[in-house]
Amino acid sequence: MSLKSYSGFLLPAIESELQKQVARLDEPRVKPFQEMLTYHMGWTGEGAGPEAAGKRIRPLLVLLTAAAVGGSDGADEAEAWQKALPAAAAVELVHNFSLVHDDIQDKSEKRRGRPTVWVKWGAPMAINVGDSLFVLSNLAITDLAENYPPEFVVKASKILHQTCLDLTFGQFLDMSYESRPDVKADDYWPMISGKTAALLSCCCHIGAVLGGADEATEEAYRSFGHYLGLAFQVQDDILGIWGDETVTGKSAASDLVEGKKSLPVLVGLSKNGKFAERWNQGSISHAEVEEVARQLASEGAYAYTHDAAKQMTDMALNCLREADPQGEAGDALMELAGKLLGRSA
Amino acid sequence: MSLKSYSGFLLPAIESELQKQVARLDEPRVKPFQEMLTYHMGWTGEGAGPEAAGKRIRPLLVLLTAAAVGGSDGADEAEAWQKALPAAAAVELVHNFSLVHDDIQDKSEKRRGRPTVWVKWGAPMAINVGDSLFVLSNLAITDLAENYPPEFVVKASKILHQTCLDLTFGQFLDMSYESRPDVKADDYWPMISGKTAALLSCCCHIGAVLGGADEATEEAYRSFGHYLGLAFQVQDDILGIWGDETVTGKSAASDLVEGKKSLPVLVGLSKNGKFAERWNQGSISHAEVEEVARQLASEGAYAYTHDAAKQMTDMALNCLREADPQGEAGDALMELAGKLLGRSA
Repeated sequence: MSLKSYSGFLLPAIESELQKQVARLDEPRVKPFQEMLTYHMGWTGEGAGPEAAGKRIRPLLVLLTAAAVGGSDGADEAEAWQKALPAAAAVELVHNFSLVHDDIQDKSEKRRGRPTVWVKWGAPMAINVGDSLFVLSNLAITDLAENYPPEFVVKASKILHQTCLDLTFGQFLDMSYESRPDVKADDYWPMISGKTAALLSCCCHIGAVLGGADEATEEAYRSFGHYLGLAFQVQDDILGIWGDETVTGKSAASDLVEGKKSLPVLVGLSKNGKFAERWNQGSISHAEVEEVARQLASEGAYAYTHDAAKQMTDMALNCLREADPQGEAGDALMELAGKLLGRSA
Repeated sequence: MSLKSYSGFLLPAIESELQKQVARLDEPRVKPFQEMLTYHMGWTGEGAGPEAAGKRIRPLLVLLTAAAVGGSDGADEAEAWQKALPAAAAVELVHNFSLVHDDIQDKSEKRRGRPTVWVKWGAPMAINVGDSLFVLSNLAITDLAENYPPEFVVKASKILHQTCLDLTFGQFLDMSYESRPDVKADDYWPMISGKTAALLSCCCHIGAVLGGADEATEEAYRSFGHYLGLAFQVQDDILGIWGDETVTGKSAASDLVEGKKSLPVLVGLSKNGKFAERWNQGSISHAEVEEVARQLASEGAYAYTHDAAKQMTDMALNCLREADPQGEAGDALMELAGKLLGRSA
């Protein structure tokens, strides 16, 4: 069965589980509060729909991993992913909590094409919306107790909470790099390990645990998610400077205009050449961005970043082969990995 | 043994457990981040010390409850509270997470006499500090797995997470009341149930569960914490308008100047008298605050609020008697309850 076929029934099941979790706010007195959450999740308000909801990649990873480990035939497979649904909701809620707070911190006015929560309701309310999405993820993970023995719930909870700690580390590093003049390419990896890779790793790790993986397989899935996250972020950095607007949906080279210290920029700065000189003079306008991107590439930053992306992609695929995903869900997981890793500049 | 004697060894044990939990941020790369947390906890930076740390009432409630349920003699009692230490840390970390976010939301510049986290490091960093304190509370509660069977850990986690959801409800109501012109005295109770009573209830509830209480005792402790929280908040509202500055440490009647819709104010507004007329004309200055407070009392708001405080106090003490705390820890818990409920205007 293809990834598309799986998505056809996994995505509605994920959406329904997410709605069940968010329904914990379904009390008349806090109705406007619940609407802030359902707006952010893409279900209500202007522009609601699949575009506004996002791709739900993280819950898909949880479910496909659980099924690829836990299922030796179709029936086992279905049971494996159905039981794991609360964990799938939990990781997506963590992702969305971090987006809501990130948008306040970065003063981002749009998210998936719509006004962000803080723009609509103000930062104080938006902080509370993020907090409540975070709480819902904690409640969702304890819902696993309906389907698994309590020691599984404790193990999955610990993995989720440790991941959230890594997220706050990554967020701290990201914010502190903005004002630090001395950030090096080596500083990049711990930051994206926290900001991007930790949660993708968590998805595969929890999926493997819930699928009943042995220790070696669990570790292989955990590492697969980690390198998948790193590869994904490095590719995103390439797209943010030399990308195709029709692919990314954001204007190419926008990371340069925003002054984002992505990997290519850090590599360029380490060269102390014309790019570094221009960067240090202050913000780059849309008019000159194409020229600056070309200069950055000519100093070797494109080749370096492209190599790094390839290395991380190879590591991810090696780990996935080692994990040896089983059955049709395993094939679909391989396909999803290929799709996520195949985005190129 | 008196509350003072218990505090003599419980408070250092609480502080040491809290430090162990916050030490999860002890990594060279995020050192400045860890310092933001240790500053807020009152351990480092200008004005560090017990005053800056707060009274640790919530963890004391957890430990004394666990000991008053779990201990039939001194040795059992000591084992009961020592095993519960991670839960004590968890509730204090939740309390502090909510304070850090609350200070951003309210634009409060001082907390326990020192500049707040957002004043020192900016709102984006402070949001992340609050998030990480929240994560640490989640990790702390799973540390119970070292001392209890996993089903206890899942039960305690669910209680903690449900409490945090109630906190976000209360926070939403509090913020929405600021701009709503039609808030009634009846709207007051759901708000403080979330903002104040939920966490105090959680402390006694988790303490009872970890002490091994039967269902009726568990419920009695949970209700005790709930009414304790309500009584405490109502008394705080009285002190905020007619209080003694030397007792509260904040200027009397400051709640009127800040325009806080506390219970006496909501009662006063419902009278549609001279107080309501003055309130609706705009903010109240320090110069006129004594006169407005006197007017509010003359319209019956003091008597009403005082009665409400007394009712909640009686409920709390009834529940505590029903819970029937045992041994010397039980006596100390009674003493703590008396102390918390005895604050009067």
